[in-house]
Amino acid sequence: MSDINAAPAPEHGDNMKVEDLIKVVGPLTAKVDDSDLHEKHLWVGGVNVAKLPKMTSSPLYIMDEEHIRTNLRAWRDNMNAQFERNRVAYAFKAFTCKEMARIVEEEDVSLLVCSGGELAIALAADFPADRIVMHGNNKSDDEIQEAILNGVGTIVVDNLQEVGKLEMYADLFDEEPELLVRIKPGVVADTHTYVQTGEEDSKFGCSIANGDAMEVTKAILDSDCLKLKGFAAHIGSQIFNIEPFDLEIDAVLDFACKIREETGFVADEIDLGGGLGVAYTKDDVPTPVDEFAARIGAHMKEACEQRNFPMPLVAVQPGRSIVANAGITCYRATTIKEVPGLRTFIAVDGGMSDNIRTALYGSKYEAIIANKAGYPRTDVATIVGKHCESGDILIENASLQPYEENDTICIFGTGAYCYTMSSNYNSIGKPGVTFVKDGKYRRVIRPQEIEDILALEVDEPYLQ
Amino acid sequence: MSDINAAPAPEHGDNMKVEDLIKVVGPLTAKVDDSDLHEKHLWVGGVNVAKLPKMTSSPLYIMDEEHIRTNLRAWRDNMNAQFERNRVAYAFKAFTCKEMARIVEEEDVSLLVCSGGELAIALAADFPADRIVMHGNNKSDDEIQEAILNGVGTIVVDNLQEVGKLEMYADLFDEEPELLVRIKPGVVADTHTYVQTGEEDSKFGCSIANGDAMEVTKAILDSDCLKLKGFAAHIGSQIFNIEPFDLEIDAVLDFACKIREETGFVADEIDLGGGLGVAYTKDDVPTPVDEFAARIGAHMKEACEQRNFPMPLVAVQPGRSIVANAGITCYRATTIKEVPGLRTFIAVDGGMSDNIRTALYGSKYEAIIANKAGYPRTDVATIVGKHCESGDILIENASLQPYEENDTICIFGTGAYCYTMSSNYNSIGKPGVTFVKDGKYRRVIRPQEIEDILALEVDEPYLQ
Repeated sequence: MSDINAAPAPEHGDNMKVEDLIKVVGPLTAKVDDSDLHEKHLWVGGVNVAKLPKMTSSPLYIMDEEHIRTNLRAWRDNMNAQFERNRVAYAFKAFTCKEMARIVEEEDVSLLVCSGGELAIALAADFPADRIVMHGNNKSDDEIQEAILNGVGTIVVDNLQEVGKLEMYADLFDEEPELLVRIKPGVVADTHTYVQTGEEDSKFGCSIANGDAMEVTKAILDSDCLKLKGFAAHIGSQIFNIEPFDLEIDAVLDFACKIREETGFVADEIDLGGGLGVAYTKDDVPTPVDEFAARIGAHMKEACEQRNFPMPLVAVQPGRSIVANAGITCYRATTIKEVPGLRTFIAVDGGMSDNIRTALYGSKYEAIIANKAGYPRTDVATIVGKHCESGDILIENASLQPYEENDTICIFGTGAYCYTMSSNYNSIGKPGVTFVKDGKYRRVIRPQEIEDILALEVDEPYLQ
Repeated sequence: MSDINAAPAPEHGDNMKVEDLIKVVGPLTAKVDDSDLHEKHLWVGGVNVAKLPKMTSSPLYIMDEEHIRTNLRAWRDNMNAQFERNRVAYAFKAFTCKEMARIVEEEDVSLLVCSGGELAIALAADFPADRIVMHGNNKSDDEIQEAILNGVGTIVVDNLQEVGKLEMYADLFDEEPELLVRIKPGVVADTHTYVQTGEEDSKFGCSIANGDAMEVTKAILDSDCLKLKGFAAHIGSQIFNIEPFDLEIDAVLDFACKIREETGFVADEIDLGGGLGVAYTKDDVPTPVDEFAARIGAHMKEACEQRNFPMPLVAVQPGRSIVANAGITCYRATTIKEVPGLRTFIAVDGGMSDNIRTALYGSKYEAIIANKAGYPRTDVATIVGKHCESGDILIENASLQPYEENDTICIFGTGAYCYTMSSNYNSIGKPGVTFVKDGKYRRVIRPQEIEDILALEVDEPYLQ
């Protein structure tokens, strides 16, 4: 949790060269243009991002399309290398829009949706329903109906109440939805408390320990109109230490064996969830996708052999690891305020409404000045927003190039959970999202205007 | 910060009678209808709120219009009783919509806006511009122009850069905006770190200690087209201990005396900001408005006499204290999940997208079951949302009546900073807002649909 009432800021930045920094936290195609001695700007996708907000709108989320596609292919190809049958489903909640769904579709990856809203957006983008996985701890009747009627390929069942609803609507619509049961593997990943899942004391899934998982599984097997494919689990998010995935595999397979023993049902599909960490700061060392896939590949084979269990289809749900570092947010430095002996504040034209993660999770980020990218980050400033709240901090004590008003501040690693968690706090519209690729750019989401916010207001009389 | 990996939940609720609870945290007109032995529902504004979501939409923010008006009048009348010249400006960011601006206007109260968006909404509601106060630590050029062109009555200047911009646009438009200078009084209110302001290490306002406040004041006094009225300060939010307001008054008046001495300018207006706390839980004991007004009234008189300073117009900016307890959020209990030996989760049809305050600040709330309001809260459950995130908690270990699926869960005290901080996380639309009064209801903000979210997406080709 950030606390601006802390010790004075360091006097100097980390001097890190931007070329080295962007290899860790930046988009794949990010580079510093040093062709001109005076204009050492940051370019992403062949586009000068120091100038892009001025040409479109500011603040601006910028997504590197090549980075997204490369990551999708890395997941697809590495899972294919490990598992004859597998499914990579991009977790749509990390960054959600029709264009993202189209790219996922083109790269032959599946899509994980967690609400009726995400399902509607995927369908609006003509994403094939049979490649959609729908989960959620608390699906509404409407959401279950939509999933069944639209032929969603896989529904992850969270609890017993859902089995009854699924059966009712499957019967009503004469469909046979294919299901996974979300179980609690009892594994706690070494990560931020808020994004831990999988432990017993969680709102997600069915406990193995208290018999819920068995009960839900049997209820599905007993049904004439529901088809059980296997089991799903999830052990957390932003995970750097991937050892717990071995424990997860063991726990899920142990449960699958217990089910085989008691009912004869042999799970044909195991979904291990998502959670692979990404580098938000220069010090973060996430596990590469190939290493992750190799580890779960090796352990799945070994664990199945040990249990004499046939190798199922193995599914994963990466979200953050596909889009986080593909995205940057560019802001204009509008007010610089020095508090002698303590720190300098750079106030930018956005803030906690477009990135709540610093305030919410105490997340750390790296920033550079996009129009001075070629210079070392010798200075330090605390980057704050324009919101009427002290907690409106983007980065505390950020290393930065020497700064001045009207600089374009670029924060790295904002491709996941920034746009999707954005608000209209202080009646500030959400920024636009622009994709860049091969020296060109296109607006994918336009900035929200005050008219969009006012459009929700209605002028109705009092009714009895 | 909530942590669901904590000790097991208490076995029993607090048994508190809802009649007693709503006197502390509930809307003014809330009452339990015990006319029917079996249907002991919660009524607000003469409307059965246990049934209202079903008749309109769920989840639903419900605002008690009488409560809002009563609070506005309490501020207005108590300030009038203390100060011959005063201004109460409702802090629009606490709850923002045209209807709220209209009510504020009708109750003869001023309006504090902190962004161009809030200004636009106020003007769309025909709120008189001369009764608008605009502040913000980082006003854009557009915002400054809009404020001047629309004749905003008072602009609170945050820093020296703003003085230059104000002068430029005032000159350009041939206007003479009336200004306050936001100063840092150096007072730290005893409240949550995130909502502390006023201390030196803050992004808001001008430091007295480092000479910024003096420099900004002189720059305005030197200008031909800017009119200085006085000074503004703010010491925090959700303040229970009101003693620091004495210190704030002393600090601001000391600075005003210093300015009088050095420049001859006698401040005619002192804005003490907002920050009066409200009761979110049964244990909270906020200071009543009359007591607050009496205290600042007495201290202002004494402090002015001591300094031989003429009593200025005294302004305050209450937000939370006007709307927080006027509002409730009603949810449908959709999934109940028991984790034996630990806790029971009630998952509702909303969550962190409509109330981020629990996750963001660790805020506490009280809840009841609206359709069982007449019964004591003998049970305990953790109320969570439908979001795909473990931190999606509304209340941990809430005392509640015995619960079951489809109950209407009512959370009290959600009238401030819930709708205005709401997001579309997981592509979930914002709930609607319905006002209730005299046995009638009216929709003021409709629920956001997925079409509203999709409307921001554009289908544009890549451009060079």
